Amino acid sequence: MGVNSNRVEDFSSHESSTIIRIPPELSSSHQPPFEMIHTVCLPPKKTTTQKLKHKLSEIFFPDDPLYRFKNQQWSRKLVLALQFLFPIFQWGPEYNLKLFRSDIISGLTIASLAIPQGISYAKLANLPPIVGLYSSFVPPLIYSVLGSSRHLAVGPVSIASLVMGSMLGEAVSYTQNPILFLQLAFTATFFAGLFQASLGLLRLGFIIDFLSKATLIGFMAGAAVIVSLQQLKGFLGIVHFTGKMQIIPVLSSVFNHRDEWSWQTVVMGTGFLVFLLTTRHISMKNPKLFWVSAAAPLTSIILSTLLVFCIKSKAHGISVIGHLPKGLNPASSNMLYFDAPLLMVAIKTGIVTGILSLTEGIAVGRTFASMKNYQVDGNKEMMAIGFMNIIGSCTSCFVTTGSFSRSAVSYNAGAKSAVSNIVMASAVLVTLLFLMPLFYYTPNVILGAIIITAVIGLIDYQSALRLWKVDKLDFLACLCSFFGVLFISVPLGLSIAVGVSVFKILLHVTRPNTLVLGNIPGTYIFQSLNRYREALRVSSFLILSVESPIYFANSTYLQERILRWIREEEEWIKANNGSTLKCIILDMTAVTAIDTSGIDMVRELRKILDKRSLQLVLANPVGSVMEKLHQTKVLEAFGLNGLYLTVGEAVADISSAWKPQA
Amino acid sequence: MGVNSNRVEDFSSHESSTIIRIPPELSSSHQPPFEMIHTVCLPPKKTTTQKLKHKLSEIFFPDDPLYRFKNQQWSRKLVLALQFLFPIFQWGPEYNLKLFRSDIISGLTIASLAIPQGISYAKLANLPPIVGLYSSFVPPLIYSVLGSSRHLAVGPVSIASLVMGSMLGEAVSYTQNPILFLQLAFTATFFAGLFQASLGLLRLGFIIDFLSKATLIGFMAGAAVIVSLQQLKGFLGIVHFTGKMQIIPVLSSVFNHRDEWSWQTVVMGTGFLVFLLTTRHISMKNPKLFWVSAAAPLTSIILSTLLVFCIKSKAHGISVIGHLPKGLNPASSNMLYFDAPLLMVAIKTGIVTGILSLTEGIAVGRTFASMKNYQVDGNKEMMAIGFMNIIGSCTSCFVTTGSFSRSAVSYNAGAKSAVSNIVMASAVLVTLLFLMPLFYYTPNVILGAIIITAVIGLIDYQSALRLWKVDKLDFLACLCSFFGVLFISVPLGLSIAVGVSVFKILLHVTRPNTLVLGNIPGTYIFQSLNRYREALRVSSFLILSVESPIYFANSTYLQERILRWIREEEEWIKANNGSTLKCIILDMTAVTAIDTSGIDMVRELRKILDKRSLQLVLANPVGSVMEKLHQTKVLEAFGLNGLYLTVGEAVADISSAWKPQA
Repeated sequence: MGVNSNRVEDFSSHESSTIIRIPPELSSSHQPPFEMIHTVCLPPKKTTTQKLKHKLSEIFFPDDPLYRFKNQQWSRKLVLALQFLFPIFQWGPEYNLKLFRSDIISGLTIASLAIPQGISYAKLANLPPIVGLYSSFVPPLIYSVLGSSRHLAVGPVSIASLVMGSMLGEAVSYTQNPILFLQLAFTATFFAGLFQASLGLLRLGFIIDFLSKATLIGFMAGAAVIVSLQQLKGFLGIVHFTGKMQIIPVLSSVFNHRDEWSWQTVVMGTGFLVFLLTTRHISMKNPKLFWVSAAAPLTSIILSTLLVFCIKSKAHGISVIGHLPKGLNPASSNMLYFDAPLLMVAIKTGIVTGILSLTEGIAVGRTFASMKNYQVDGNKEMMAIGFMNIIGSCTSCFVTTGSFSRSAVSYNAGAKSAVSNIVMASAVLVTLLFLMPLFYYTPNVILGAIIITAVIGLIDYQSALRLWKVDKLDFLACLCSFFGVLFISVPLGLSIAVGVSVFKILLHVTRPNTLVLGNIPGTYIFQSLNRYREALRVSSFLILSVESPIYFANSTYLQERILRWIREEEEWIKANNGSTLKCIILDMTAVTAIDTSGIDMVRELRKILDKRSLQLVLANPVGSVMEKLHQTKVLEAFGLNGLYLTVGEAVADISSAWKPQA
Repeated sequence: MGVNSNRVEDFSSHESSTIIRIPPELSSSHQPPFEMIHTVCLPPKKTTTQKLKHKLSEIFFPDDPLYRFKNQQWSRKLVLALQFLFPIFQWGPEYNLKLFRSDIISGLTIASLAIPQGISYAKLANLPPIVGLYSSFVPPLIYSVLGSSRHLAVGPVSIASLVMGSMLGEAVSYTQNPILFLQLAFTATFFAGLFQASLGLLRLGFIIDFLSKATLIGFMAGAAVIVSLQQLKGFLGIVHFTGKMQIIPVLSSVFNHRDEWSWQTVVMGTGFLVFLLTTRHISMKNPKLFWVSAAAPLTSIILSTLLVFCIKSKAHGISVIGHLPKGLNPASSNMLYFDAPLLMVAIKTGIVTGILSLTEGIAVGRTFASMKNYQVDGNKEMMAIGFMNIIGSCTSCFVTTGSFSRSAVSYNAGAKSAVSNIVMASAVLVTLLFLMPLFYYTPNVILGAIIITAVIGLIDYQSALRLWKVDKLDFLACLCSFFGVLFISVPLGLSIAVGVSVFKILLHVTRPNTLVLGNIPGTYIFQSLNRYREALRVSSFLILSVESPIYFANSTYLQERILRWIREEEEWIKANNGSTLKCIILDMTAVTAIDTSGIDMVRELRKILDKRSLQLVLANPVGSVMEKLHQTKVLEAFGLNGLYLTVGEAVADISSAWKPQA
């Protein structure tokens, strides 16, 4: 920045004489067609160290996170650093009673949702229900100090809970060895936090960008189906249920144990599910009635608990939560498990759930930030979520992040700052201290209904349809992750989908577009002949535009393709008695990078065309390409007549050179 | 092609009045600054099937292999098809005595090199030496019928032999179980051929493009070092040598068996190695003396055999080849091994050696074809090499391909067609039938010297140095494959290098360049302010060019980066009292593709800028991007004033709309 401090304030001083005209090839006028041919510049010289520094700063610090510190006094820098590390110092001083009122309302609203969801998601991860409440208490408090989003409602989420339960369940049975399972869950949470915080610290946040939206749509829909199917256990009252997650074993388990189905459970579950889905529908139709769906889970819990309490003598078939211990989170740092045999399972589970919860947390934070027009710093959020999970793992919490459903409620309920998280945590605190016995008669089936209602919104078939319309390969990635998760496993399904996404990028590079350009009459503009019907071929020229970097992966293809264009052009000329082809112009504007194979291709192509007496000309190579062509001495071979700033100048200058011979 | 059959033959009819002028923002003249604003077209409509067809034909048939068949009579088509399948019918009819004379000379020259190399490479693969001669007889004959290169000298090659020996050696010991080892070698050759032929048939040849030149330079140097170290066994006369390939076990094996070193062998080996390297040096200095290095191996074999024969009573320490069976290739189809336990090893070895030999064969074919200005069809070559190996595996041959060293000799000796391969095969035939007993006293150490001389040319440090200068990441890929092959294993080293190459492509996509453009005074040209010192900022505008497709992997980065450019621009304006920023123009020329995440980014960016009262304008989106923006209705949001064909038109039109307010 700041290279040119003088600016063009007035274009009118440019006489038309200095404006480029596309000169006639067979013009009768003999004045020089161009007032000025512009030379192609090399980018300013930089040492290897400077280049490396620039590259690394673009990779790790694209947002220039320290720009606020520039040109500030020391005392100010200290305050800024404090605010940078603990965003609470940024908004804290400006906080007032009016904001607090909004935050109390929204905090209590989320609490009414967070308590039933917390219990449900803990069940989803095959953990004791109380862990879900613990996880709704400590992490929100930590996030409110470290986090930069004002609307993120923190706590356990469905997908991370499901994945944790299923991945740990493959190594340890939660029914036979519940203590070890719990230890592994805390350890996995610890590693999830460690991984998240390191991603943030090392500024490697872009790794989660590789989970594209298409992948996530498929993945979330698949996970939602799996989660819903898992609830069939509670819904039908089946006692001997498979420990697996894939659709086939689950469905066969459901139908092989038809004798265990309990009609009381089914009736109660269906009734409350219909109630919850109806309230969800009402809130979706009218966002002002968001509180209808927000209050519904707690209402269902209260109603169902009362119901079971009243008919307890007759309700043999309905399983209930049972005794929950009163009191605050116990310390759990002594439960972290670092012994060899299962450590790898915990690390792997931690990384996968870490990535998933990070993706959800960051995406939710960004969504609401952009609605209220403020910025959320991805790397800082990662550190906040990471520390939250590290501390959580030492205080009996399992993996937590910003939940989409609760954040939406929080936003609609008018949350203004992270104080809403503190209010929610206080409500959970009261519950933990005094209200636990009330959950004794809460039927498990109601938790299933709450989970299904929460995850059903993850099946976003409209977005999938949009993918199909706009980008078939994105849709394929979406399908792969959906079916991969459904039939194979969560981590493998995700890897396949990431593979497809990467393959798509490679495919674009391996088979780039090449276009034949023509001139739009009366202008200097050269555009695709195929797309712009008004564009005309320039006789004796073949103008090709390459729409991709030239890499080892496409240099062979490009050479063949360019030679085929030339062959086809020559055949066309033969068939139409056109004037002989003399010059090939490669428009390099979109060739944004080149590697050594690409340079060899250009050199090779020039040699081949030279032997056929065809001139090869490059137009407008970008800085980095220009630099490499220069370093490898390819430019010297091209000479002055082989390089132009624009296609227009190339056509003008070269055809004017031919004129005397014509 | 052929959309516009009328061409611009005369540009002079365009009056300057129709030429675009960049209009002044604060111009005093009130005439409309633009005669014509060009609308951005959508590409011609295509159905999904048409698009798929086009895409698939670009992926699988970029060279339009059937173009010769277009508009031909049936009888002619038949002839063309025959020539297409068997290139021998193409050059056969035009073959004459003069060409034959050249081919005889070059054929005999390669034979003198092929016989010693064949024996040596068979030893390198831990196979009986005679297999190397068999492999120099049948495959060249098959290639001469099917292959399209005129200079490829076919036979065993060092790298594929080394890899085959080392990969099979990990599963079966060639000393304890030589028959099984031989069976596996034939089976692996069969699968190599099957894999190669399928790649060609399915037109998936671009897969070998992913072995970039940088990767290959590193890989070949690493393989050359490994091969040379393996020869220490023969050179020092060590009997108990490690079966491993990596540098560390080999070196420790050499120094742990110092008691087995035999001075006679060392003296003889060193002497002939010096002789061979000297002849190599002479031929490199003066390419006309190519026959010096070509004849040297056979000379060494004859001399050393005579020497050992004369001193046989005293030469206890020198191991010799010993008895070789006379006669033609025996059938070996009954030796193919398809039983479960080792089948996977054979398949894996087949695929890796298949890829490697294909890469070498195609590269060699292309190199010499481009020297003589003819084309080699990659997919057809793959089929030729594939069939050669399939038939080879049934006739006691191991994996073969076009060898670089022998092809260079063939080229220099004046080979004109595949007949040189037939001549060579005939010479091998004579050897097989009559001359085998002569090799009885040939010392093994001489084979080692021949191998070292052959592979030493693969260490191309100059190219590696060039990589370092031009492209640091290419150099990294080169280093990775070099050290990976040296310290880990051949397949893993190769995979790491391919990973680095792919990572490089992804890195370019993940962190693309964004440039601030300025106007070059007096022209319509907008170029990087940083690179073109004469370019000037246009006040009230920020013109950004994005140099990459916009994908899920970079959409977050790009959004942040663009917002940072805007922030920096506004800070600059504040510091310099410039006129307020009103409009951001995104030059989309180099954005060659967009996916759904990218589209969301553009939409999001527009919203953010809208809230800040900044106008966002797109200039020159390419066809596919335009199509997707249209399908997702993003274009509608931009409206007429949000899309221009060129940056120049955008600046002109928008600033003229502001004028009345100014």
